[in-house]
Amino acid sequence: MQRSPIRHCRECGSPVVYRLPDDGDNKPRAVCTACTTIHYENPLNVVGTVPFWGEDGRQVLLCLRNIEPRRGKWTLPAGFMELGETTAEGARRETSEEAGASIEIGPLFTLMNVSRVGQVHMYYLARLLNDRFDPGHETIEARLFTEDEIPWDEIAFRTVRETLECYFSDRRQGRLGFHTIDVG
Amino acid sequence: MQRSPIRHCRECGSPVVYRLPDDGDNKPRAVCTACTTIHYENPLNVVGTVPFWGEDGRQVLLCLRNIEPRRGKWTLPAGFMELGETTAEGARRETSEEAGASIEIGPLFTLMNVSRVGQVHMYYLARLLNDRFDPGHETIEARLFTEDEIPWDEIAFRTVRETLECYFSDRRQGRLGFHTIDVG
Repeated sequence: MQRSPIRHCRECGSPVVYRLPDDGDNKPRAVCTACTTIHYENPLNVVGTVPFWGEDGRQVLLCLRNIEPRRGKWTLPAGFMELGETTAEGARRETSEEAGASIEIGPLFTLMNVSRVGQVHMYYLARLLNDRFDPGHETIEARLFTEDEIPWDEIAFRTVRETLECYFSDRRQGRLGFHTIDVG
Repeated sequence: MQRSPIRHCRECGSPVVYRLPDDGDNKPRAVCTACTTIHYENPLNVVGTVPFWGEDGRQVLLCLRNIEPRRGKWTLPAGFMELGETTAEGARRETSEEAGASIEIGPLFTLMNVSRVGQVHMYYLARLLNDRFDPGHETIEARLFTEDEIPWDEIAFRTVRETLECYFSDRRQGRLGFHTIDVG
């Protein structure tokens, strides 16, 4: 998601201009030409889970996207964090909305910077409580994959691929860690 | 920071109303009454460091705030993450801006949800390369404190106190970990 520039003031509706504010700030901001309100634009968090199942967590749950971007590609359940929730609560909500999966949420597993698009992606480990799924309208199909079955060329986002690679690599080494990655 | 409601559309300047959008979303959003643009509001990231110095990192660098909120209280260097930077780059920038400190940035140390105000705070460990500081206009004074010297009743934010407590506790145990905390 590349963001479009702000055109009008959220307070009074007048046009804004991008300029250095008068408060000593060293970055251009959208400043209202009428009421001088400064509008800040900041990175967004995307939160999700790695839902696992079976002996030694050998299967993970992926969702076939029914919405753009990347409709028809596979993803871990994830979405934009909302006001009023924690990162873990957001991850749980997305897992429920996109996969209808029941989980016991675990520790944070990956934190990835996608600075090119102004996003931070965070994935939590999540033990599936059963293997019955009930995907919402954003998902065509939700199913379990072993490492060998993962459709690596059909993964929707690089952060999902990175997280899956970390997951199976950690499983082989017998210890799930915490990974910070700059995706660029 | 409690955020004020959006009043006008950033695209066309017309008034917005808070309502359920027509796309199946289940949360009220600010929707433009003229062009129907939907305006999302999401949590913000605050990024900073725990700059340490001396044998076994026994001293940490705190900054006496020269700006509101909490002017005259002590904080770790931190501020809002900006577009175009990673969490670690933002933490480094804030450490430079607020303390003028030279650091070697280390791993992520704390990730704290402050869902009441829609914020996620992240602190990185940072080894100070020297003990000369050059605080910017946001800081009255930057100085090193041992655990015994920390002005616990004069700490600006709860996330700073939590991070400092984790730091000294981990140091006593001889191992710096990664901590996720819900501050409420």
